[in-house]
Amino acid sequence: MYSKNAAAPFPPMGWNSYDYYNTMVNEQQVRDNADYMARSLKKHGWEYIVIDIQWSDPDAGTDNEHFQYIPFSRFCLDEWSRQIPAPNRFPSSAGGKGFKPLADYIHSLGLKFGIHIMRGIPRYAAHDHLAVKTADGSTVTADRIADPYSVSRWNPDMYGVDWTKKGAQDYYDSVFDLYASWGVDFVKVDDICNTNMYPHNPYSAEKEIELIAHAVEACGRPMVLSLSPGPAVIEKAWHLETYANMWRITDDFWDEWRFLKAMFERCEVWQKHSGNGNWPDCDMLPVGKLGYGFGRGAWETRFTEDEQYTMLTLWSIFRAPLMIGTDLPQLDAFTLSLLTNDEVLALEKRRSQAYLARKTDDVRLWLAESDDGGTYAAVFNLGDAALTVSGASLGLTGSARDLWRHRELGDVTELNVQLAPHAPLLLLVRA
Amino acid sequence: MYSKNAAAPFPPMGWNSYDYYNTMVNEQQVRDNADYMARSLKKHGWEYIVIDIQWSDPDAGTDNEHFQYIPFSRFCLDEWSRQIPAPNRFPSSAGGKGFKPLADYIHSLGLKFGIHIMRGIPRYAAHDHLAVKTADGSTVTADRIADPYSVSRWNPDMYGVDWTKKGAQDYYDSVFDLYASWGVDFVKVDDICNTNMYPHNPYSAEKEIELIAHAVEACGRPMVLSLSPGPAVIEKAWHLETYANMWRITDDFWDEWRFLKAMFERCEVWQKHSGNGNWPDCDMLPVGKLGYGFGRGAWETRFTEDEQYTMLTLWSIFRAPLMIGTDLPQLDAFTLSLLTNDEVLALEKRRSQAYLARKTDDVRLWLAESDDGGTYAAVFNLGDAALTVSGASLGLTGSARDLWRHRELGDVTELNVQLAPHAPLLLLVRA
Amino acid sequence: MYSKNAAAPFPPMGWNSYDYYNTMVNEQQVRDNADYMARSLKKHGWEYIVIDIQWSDPDAGTDNEHFQYIPFSRFCLDEWSRQIPAPNRFPSSAGGKGFKPLADYIHSLGLKFGIHIMRGIPRYAAHDHLAVKTADGSTVTADRIADPYSVSRWNPDMYGVDWTKKGAQDYYDSVFDLYASWGVDFVKVDDICNTNMYPHNPYSAEKEIELIAHAVEACGRPMVLSLSPGPAVIEKAWHLETYANMWRITDDFWDEWRFLKAMFERCEVWQKHSGNGNWPDCDMLPVGKLGYGFGRGAWETRFTEDEQYTMLTLWSIFRAPLMIGTDLPQLDAFTLSLLTNDEVLALEKRRSQAYLARKTDDVRLWLAESDDGGTYAAVFNLGDAALTVSGASLGLTGSARDLWRHRELGDVTELNVQLAPHAPLLLLVRA
Amino acid sequence: MYSKNAAAPFPPMGWNSYDYYNTMVNEQQVRDNADYMARSLKKHGWEYIVIDIQWSDPDAGTDNEHFQYIPFSRFCLDEWSRQIPAPNRFPSSAGGKGFKPLADYIHSLGLKFGIHIMRGIPRYAAHDHLAVKTADGSTVTADRIADPYSVSRWNPDMYGVDWTKKGAQDYYDSVFDLYASWGVDFVKVDDICNTNMYPHNPYSAEKEIELIAHAVEACGRPMVLSLSPGPAVIEKAWHLETYANMWRITDDFWDEWRFLKAMFERCEVWQKHSGNGNWPDCDMLPVGKLGYGFGRGAWETRFTEDEQYTMLTLWSIFRAPLMIGTDLPQLDAFTLSLLTNDEVLALEKRRSQAYLARKTDDVRLWLAESDDGGTYAAVFNLGDAALTVSGASLGLTGSARDLWRHRELGDVTELNVQLAPHAPLLLLVRA
Repeated sequence: MYSKNAAAPFPPMGWNSYDYYNTMVNEQQVRDNADYMARSLKKHGWEYIVIDIQWSDPDAGTDNEHFQYIPFSRFCLDEWSRQIPAPNRFPSSAGGKGFKPLADYIHSLGLKFGIHIMRGIPRYAAHDHLAVKTADGSTVTADRIADPYSVSRWNPDMYGVDWTKKGAQDYYDSVFDLYASWGVDFVKVDDICNTNMYPHNPYSAEKEIELIAHAVEACGRPMVLSLSPGPAVIEKAWHLETYANMWRITDDFWDEWRFLKAMFERCEVWQKHSGNGNWPDCDMLPVGKLGYGFGRGAWETRFTEDEQYTMLTLWSIFRAPLMIGTDLPQLDAFTLSLLTNDEVLALEKRRSQAYLARKTDDVRLWLAESDDGGTYAAVFNLGDAALTVSGASLGLTGSARDLWRHRELGDVTELNVQLAPHAPLLLLVRA
Repeated sequence: MYSKNAAAPFPPMGWNSYDYYNTMVNEQQVRDNADYMARSLKKHGWEYIVIDIQWSDPDAGTDNEHFQYIPFSRFCLDEWSRQIPAPNRFPSSAGGKGFKPLADYIHSLGLKFGIHIMRGIPRYAAHDHLAVKTADGSTVTADRIADPYSVSRWNPDMYGVDWTKKGAQDYYDSVFDLYASWGVDFVKVDDICNTNMYPHNPYSAEKEIELIAHAVEACGRPMVLSLSPGPAVIEKAWHLETYANMWRITDDFWDEWRFLKAMFERCEVWQKHSGNGNWPDCDMLPVGKLGYGFGRGAWETRFTEDEQYTMLTLWSIFRAPLMIGTDLPQLDAFTLSLLTNDEVLALEKRRSQAYLARKTDDVRLWLAESDDGGTYAAVFNLGDAALTVSGASLGLTGSARDLWRHRELGDVTELNVQLAPHAPLLLLVRA
Repeated sequence: MYSKNAAAPFPPMGWNSYDYYNTMVNEQQVRDNADYMARSLKKHGWEYIVIDIQWSDPDAGTDNEHFQYIPFSRFCLDEWSRQIPAPNRFPSSAGGKGFKPLADYIHSLGLKFGIHIMRGIPRYAAHDHLAVKTADGSTVTADRIADPYSVSRWNPDMYGVDWTKKGAQDYYDSVFDLYASWGVDFVKVDDICNTNMYPHNPYSAEKEIELIAHAVEACGRPMVLSLSPGPAVIEKAWHLETYANMWRITDDFWDEWRFLKAMFERCEVWQKHSGNGNWPDCDMLPVGKLGYGFGRGAWETRFTEDEQYTMLTLWSIFRAPLMIGTDLPQLDAFTLSLLTNDEVLALEKRRSQAYLARKTDDVRLWLAESDDGGTYAAVFNLGDAALTVSGASLGLTGSARDLWRHRELGDVTELNVQLAPHAPLLLLVRA
Repeated sequence: MYSKNAAAPFPPMGWNSYDYYNTMVNEQQVRDNADYMARSLKKHGWEYIVIDIQWSDPDAGTDNEHFQYIPFSRFCLDEWSRQIPAPNRFPSSAGGKGFKPLADYIHSLGLKFGIHIMRGIPRYAAHDHLAVKTADGSTVTADRIADPYSVSRWNPDMYGVDWTKKGAQDYYDSVFDLYASWGVDFVKVDDICNTNMYPHNPYSAEKEIELIAHAVEACGRPMVLSLSPGPAVIEKAWHLETYANMWRITDDFWDEWRFLKAMFERCEVWQKHSGNGNWPDCDMLPVGKLGYGFGRGAWETRFTEDEQYTMLTLWSIFRAPLMIGTDLPQLDAFTLSLLTNDEVLALEKRRSQAYLARKTDDVRLWLAESDDGGTYAAVFNLGDAALTVSGASLGLTGSARDLWRHRELGDVTELNVQLAPHAPLLLLVRA
């Protein structure tokens, strides 16, 4: 198996176009976000710029139905049935250059470049019997490797690749070779993570994950392999750990408290599966301005500030990947401060797994060792009333520091902290 | 609602190409079966000649995978996205004549002509944005009415039609207009009967049935509308009765006792839903030679003679449609006798519903009134040991006639009949 | 099989203590309701007085948990493990007389007497190894026939009877012999109708129904056999028709529009299963004052008057049993008028099945023949806006009479009636 | 939370009466097994003697139905609704001494003593309103804390305890106080581990586990808490780890290859949840003579010798608890050798988790660190054909020792080992 550590020694941190732009993002917008990141976020550890779904479709965003996926669209392909960027949206890709110019630009800023793909092969490539590139030059057409019964429930573009067919691995190898030639550092493969979604053939998704993992390994460029959508199935944890870096442990996450509250249970279930290049994925951070591309106007995140602290605290003690959902050039002061607290972000770079140490209806206590021998303690008030946290109840000794407020609090056993509803406390306790 | 009685005042009786030819039947074979029927079966009430699945595909039967459906095949369409016969298989259809010449020939024999279709619109018509014929001449293309998420689980050809779209009814109207112009008398619409099969949209199958029923009504030619596959959902009985003539109450039926035994439960459940142009469908009769087109050589039916008597007895007292599955020119003497017993076939033409009158683990008693005031009584031995039936136990009075053996048996209450395992007794009891 | 027609030639009409008194009704209250029925309702066809659940428990109603069922209560039994009335609540039963004195009184008013039982044998009879009465005098104790894994999900009193055990039929025979000796005319057997409720043994409920049906038949007194709770399973319709008179086609029904609206689908599903002593049961009529015994104070029915007309119209065209839920002595003028419209109640006494003739999202048309050759037409507005019904759309000819308003409306094809939301129109159309 | 490490620093190893004696074991048989263990197994690390189900029932084993559970049996209780040993089977318990004399004897041999209980409170205690011992002396009876809807699906003795009721914790505290007074070291609580089994109340099993865990903690004596039956639910792993030492990760395990093969998937799923006093449980080892108490005569294990090596290898690298199922005094030479290989048993006492390192249809490779810095490697041939294992493929370097055969094999990268079907290879590789 290839070294997943090489691609993702720590949870990836970056920006993803989906929460704000949906299917509509264009090259200038991507560059603007990259510029902002290089200027204001990079020094805090943020580095990935990821273009999400439908970048090959010239018309994406012009049809408001179906979440802006366009059924039977004839999006852009090269001569080998591989998607290429729509040049009207990504002008630098014209003339067969693909995402290379844009990736080069992003790399020039000291950042990394990622893209989204739907698993499978374009449906119309199969119906048109388009060519597939093979390692040995033998003739394979898309209809020979596409599975006509393997269709996404929510996106109309692709057929699953039938792993039993000659040419199936060639196809994926050719796709990732192309991405490597562009300079892609991160691939989010969609419609594949929750492997229980495929009733027509219970193993096809797992086998398709293996095809993809082998293609990543074979392409020669380190790439983070991220699988969506969730919820991933815990019984399949070994398979995910073996073949991917990230996998979504939740359905799409948005800015509502009930979703955030539910994430505590997801993290509980997956707590023993992070580390060593494996980063269970809690989805993007829906902060700041959101949803411009969804056809009903952008909105401000519906999370309160306390809820946003709770989110960042959980994500960082759990070491979830951090992918910002908002449009970075429009970042307000609060959100910027939220995303640039180095004492909090340091939790993402530590070596130890976190674990749930206490659970009641309203309170969660998560603990983790810091690399220097201290203990991170995250206390969450999930209830709708204020809560007093007594330091003595944490079972820790030493001196506590409040990481959000950058304050020394003294002997942890003498603490008495009032937590507002939905608010967290994040401490580093050292002897 | 259109008069279903006009098309099917009694359960249709005929021949269907599937059980013997699978996807491979050609024009000469159809004509040979029609000739045989006209010569030897028509006088006993048999009249339908039905061409089953894949008649538009020139290559059907050349690929042994997937039950000979060919993924991403570019089968024959006219300029309006409608399937037309493959001329290499149906030469008389060449030049845009469709099935009209063949239907004319079958009509000339005093028989009726039927075809199978998959519900929906060809997938490649959608991907190629082919035209749909509309009543008002407005422009609609296949991609505007096809539902990219509505795909069969077992056949790769079609997308379901999205009933919410403008042009959806036009499409089906145009399809049935074409069939009417050919002289089609019977249409078996597949992948639509078990309306619980469509998890992505629980109502789409019902709405698509309604589109089809309206198209049948609008086409101006009486046609039997038959829906497959089953098992149909008994909670939806009203919908099926309102919109169709026949619906499959079972999954595909083949020549194994366990399937035949299971049919007794299906008939029990559906017993109150036959009559008035509604004929719950127990699938074809797998008698004689079977399976030539399935790639592993033809075989003789695995049913014993007694099991075949049981099958015909159940089908006829239940008034199930009778569709012969074997190749008629190869009929042997036993099977011919089985299919031409006029005293038994008379049950298909009676007015009354049958009802289950007694049920134990091994015995079933079904009763029905004959049109002349007598009582049909069918006793089945479903057990694996011989069974003695006492006439007194039937709860009937009068004189009994054995319809299979054409013998008067005398006073029913004094009968004592030995039934072999899996054998039936079919009586007509008259005062 | 015994003649179900003898016991229930038409749908039973009467009063049931549950909706008002829950578990708490006492003898005086029963007598008061019987007196009222004899005086004011009997002449309109009402005749049954039915005592619902927990009449053997002296403490029923004293514990407000668990809907007033009392776990591990030692309710009243005779020496044969059979429940007898709690004498503190039913004084006339003292001294071993059971319900005979009360039944005699009700019979003296020209009415009929019914009781509720839970299926099975009292749990504590099994644990205490109490005696069961057997036909041949052999010794059987309750522990030998009780099934320790067959417990109700909602009532703590009984174990199911294991039909495979010697003595099982004896037990039920002894129970119904006792009821026959009391003069019981109607038995509502609970926790048995929805035969899918019993995952531990899928056939046990059906077999227990058969034990009970045989006991009813053997007891020598015609009794209506009514099974609860629902929803009954339509696949089991034949079994229910064969062994019972009434079976609940719905879960408990209460006075909310959503429940009433849902009943239209239940009636659609079961429409072919009424007649010949079989009366699918839509549960009690929650009219007037309700719920005194439920521990939060009585309330007036939450149905509007139009909704109550809709309920009575549906029940009567469907020929559902009519069981009044309110306390009769407290009947108000509107409710009394609703329950005593003889032109409407006449539908319950007709011979023909009704059928759903048209169905849209908001409108239902049900039709049925009247015994004198006319047609009953019930139109329902299930929508939340007013609806204009054109008589021409009904597909009927002749002169229409409005049965609720006792008015001749003239030529049905010229009608134009405005229906308020949730309101019905009930016509009798005659040539 | 109490220290689970104190009770079970390593996976418990011992003997359990169930596989051989079912419900029937008696005191002499227990003593004989203890004597054998002390004499021949103790020096290899075996120490627990566990009496499985039905020890309080004097008649257990006298009724061959229901796997010898006796419905409505009035098994032995003390005055506080607590089960005590049946004195006819355990004579030393007479006079209220409980299991203390037997436990003392077992302790005198240097062994530890365990018992099985069904969760809950005896059903007849609830129906008879028997007393429950409370900490404050207040009056509580069994009917006040028993949940009448919480019954096992397979054992008729108990009702679940309703954790919301006053007295519920008192009851369990009193039970474990009694066990502590007897000297119990290990309690296997049954009908509670798979917390999805309780549809009537999805949280009741979890809450009852918490009651029990608190009682174990409060009783003051270290006891191993073992939960059955499985399969435990991986989503609930945190709860099990927090409250128990052992939990069954499989349904009952018996001597058939399909069950052993399936265990590999169970261990895969649970591999990250062992250690720190948590020992996911693969059930007893069905070796040697089995099944005497099941009413059809004892039999020799149906596992081949290779399959038994596979079983022990998997259990030991996974660090599953080892509980011998056979009757020890009848141990044959092969089985004794299987159970006394100290190099293999040493794996149970190591500190590191094992992990699945490779998985194909037929091969599994599990690895674990040894405490001295080497690597344990277990290769399994799950296929039905012989398999050649190349040492180079293991990804390890150093010198290999075959732990089953006690042989040095030399450089691991040069190994070439032939594995028979269903046979394992267990290596210790050291630099």
